[in-house]
Amino acid sequence: MKTTALIMAGGRGERFWPRSRAKLPKQFISVTGDGKTLIQHAVERISDMVAPEDVFIATGEMYYDIVREQLPDVPPQNILCEPVGRNTAPCIALGAAHIRKKYGDAIMLVLPSDHIIKYTSLFVQQLNDAAAAAEENGNLVTLGITPTYPETGYGYIQFDNAARKGRTYPVKRFVEKPDFETAQRYMESEEYLWNSGMFVWKVSSIMENLRQLMPALYEGTQRIEAAVGTAAEKEVLAREFADFPSTSIDYGVMEKAQNIYTLPGTFGWDDVGSWLALERTQKTNEFGNVISGNVVSVGSKGCILQGGKRLVAAVGISDLIVVDTEDVLLVCEKQSVSDIKKVLDTLRTCNRNEYI
Amino acid sequence: MKTTALIMAGGRGERFWPRSRAKLPKQFISVTGDGKTLIQHAVERISDMVAPEDVFIATGEMYYDIVREQLPDVPPQNILCEPVGRNTAPCIALGAAHIRKKYGDAIMLVLPSDHIIKYTSLFVQQLNDAAAAAEENGNLVTLGITPTYPETGYGYIQFDNAARKGRTYPVKRFVEKPDFETAQRYMESEEYLWNSGMFVWKVSSIMENLRQLMPALYEGTQRIEAAVGTAAEKEVLAREFADFPSTSIDYGVMEKAQNIYTLPGTFGWDDVGSWLALERTQKTNEFGNVISGNVVSVGSKGCILQGGKRLVAAVGISDLIVVDTEDVLLVCEKQSVSDIKKVLDTLRTCNRNEYI
Repeated sequence: MKTTALIMAGGRGERFWPRSRAKLPKQFISVTGDGKTLIQHAVERISDMVAPEDVFIATGEMYYDIVREQLPDVPPQNILCEPVGRNTAPCIALGAAHIRKKYGDAIMLVLPSDHIIKYTSLFVQQLNDAAAAAEENGNLVTLGITPTYPETGYGYIQFDNAARKGRTYPVKRFVEKPDFETAQRYMESEEYLWNSGMFVWKVSSIMENLRQLMPALYEGTQRIEAAVGTAAEKEVLAREFADFPSTSIDYGVMEKAQNIYTLPGTFGWDDVGSWLALERTQKTNEFGNVISGNVVSVGSKGCILQGGKRLVAAVGISDLIVVDTEDVLLVCEKQSVSDIKKVLDTLRTCNRNEYI
Repeated sequence: MKTTALIMAGGRGERFWPRSRAKLPKQFISVTGDGKTLIQHAVERISDMVAPEDVFIATGEMYYDIVREQLPDVPPQNILCEPVGRNTAPCIALGAAHIRKKYGDAIMLVLPSDHIIKYTSLFVQQLNDAAAAAEENGNLVTLGITPTYPETGYGYIQFDNAARKGRTYPVKRFVEKPDFETAQRYMESEEYLWNSGMFVWKVSSIMENLRQLMPALYEGTQRIEAAVGTAAEKEVLAREFADFPSTSIDYGVMEKAQNIYTLPGTFGWDDVGSWLALERTQKTNEFGNVISGNVVSVGSKGCILQGGKRLVAAVGISDLIVVDTEDVLLVCEKQSVSDIKKVLDTLRTCNRNEYI
């Protein structure tokens, strides 16, 4: 069965501000220092499994040109622009509609565009395992990540580690971000995986689940599918999408469906959720600093220092994030990284949107 | 007797980097936020005492044009360019030579170009007191500053507070920067003042002391004086200055001369020795931050934040100095402010002089 992929690239990446901006969010910038953007990596790492013409990109209108430029091998008609942001369920339904229209049925990988994966070979092998399971049983397979530490910033998947079925395990439930103690208990129980937001299924399987669990969304999706390639496509898409609820696929389908399975992935995954990800995914120097760009450090420790064109002089500082861009400079205490959103709120309030 | 002033403007202001740069040091920039540079304030605050044509500026060749531009009322021939930096004794001797050549004898105020003085009215009154004492007794008068806290970054003057002579007191000795405990004892003893590096004397008095205490310097100074206004002036100045020792007036004269008096000044003085001066001289907000320019602060405390053209976002940081300039950004722990020099050393070593 043909394998296709829907790469979700509609995110705003606010926690990566100021490098990630409304005009050019995280998935379209290079954070790994190799010059390639996160979305380019996302497409490249599955290239042995999915041909460029079978890759679909779901994103916002304003990012169409960027996607074209960064992914020239992906056909223009595969770039699916969501008229408005409606969370992942409508996004995935839109992708499924296009794939069903083009191929009838197919394996559909649903992948984020802004994650880091260190072991591509393992990743692809495990995607193939998931695809085999999804094709064989018509299950909805979600890639869980075996936790390496009690992260409180991720949602978790509880699975039945005694009921292995091939390479997958039945999912008991999805849980929201836990506190630290809970996260520790999750790890000790060996029954919980990180929810990576990566899914593998047949288009026919997800469509059937949408029909049962989100019927209004499914009907709208049918109308969109019927209009694909016609003169009315854009107008139908806009009308239907506006009516769709803003619901995540986790809440709308995965938490309610019967045949949910998970595959415990281990391939060096990081969702690059904030600047702190750079410490987890990049090499720190002997002083615990992660430094890139034009930086001079004197007696600084445990810092993330991203120089831009200008010189950044870091003198005797500790546990800080310093990010220099053309028009914005961020100096942030590591523990306050979640407050970066407050800066963006302030900027919106003050109508200084050029900085957002 | 005519009152003249020598304003010393040859400093590099390295502790104020990166705002203060080799091409445009501290004395030529505005740090008080009123748009006027420190040297413009230095000349303006004595304008009731000294006419512009009696103000002499000692500086380096490379700053001649800047002085002309910032002090258009000071005659070009009053801008004395030191061929090489030779500390304050040769600088003062050069100024004295020009003043003696022009006026024979006169009161000579020797003032730094890069200090902040809050109470100009008190400052001028006390300068007049010092001038009267210098003219009457031919003494060398140094303006001491009554300490308001045990500063360890200044030199101190020990004076005999029981032997008042008019408004001045005899100086017992000059002492180098003390440690904190010593500085505390100095304050408790009520016998020590901060050494402000400001002097008042008759040209004839300082010349006589130079003749006795620094004869070689004095002879060279006589040759320079003879050449002032002649075709040979520049060449004689270059030759003599190269031979001068690099000696401070404190070490070369004040610590050895007999008739040294001090006047305990109280006029809101600060030498703007480092970025920390901004906390002492400017208003802090309710979170203890001193903020200027384009800054958004979220939960930051006790910081000195100087935004430039770009936006500076300070998130949850404490006790930091953040200074944004066109081509350099400084992020410095307050306690490490003296290590800024190490950054400059590193830059010199790496031959990145454009940043110095």
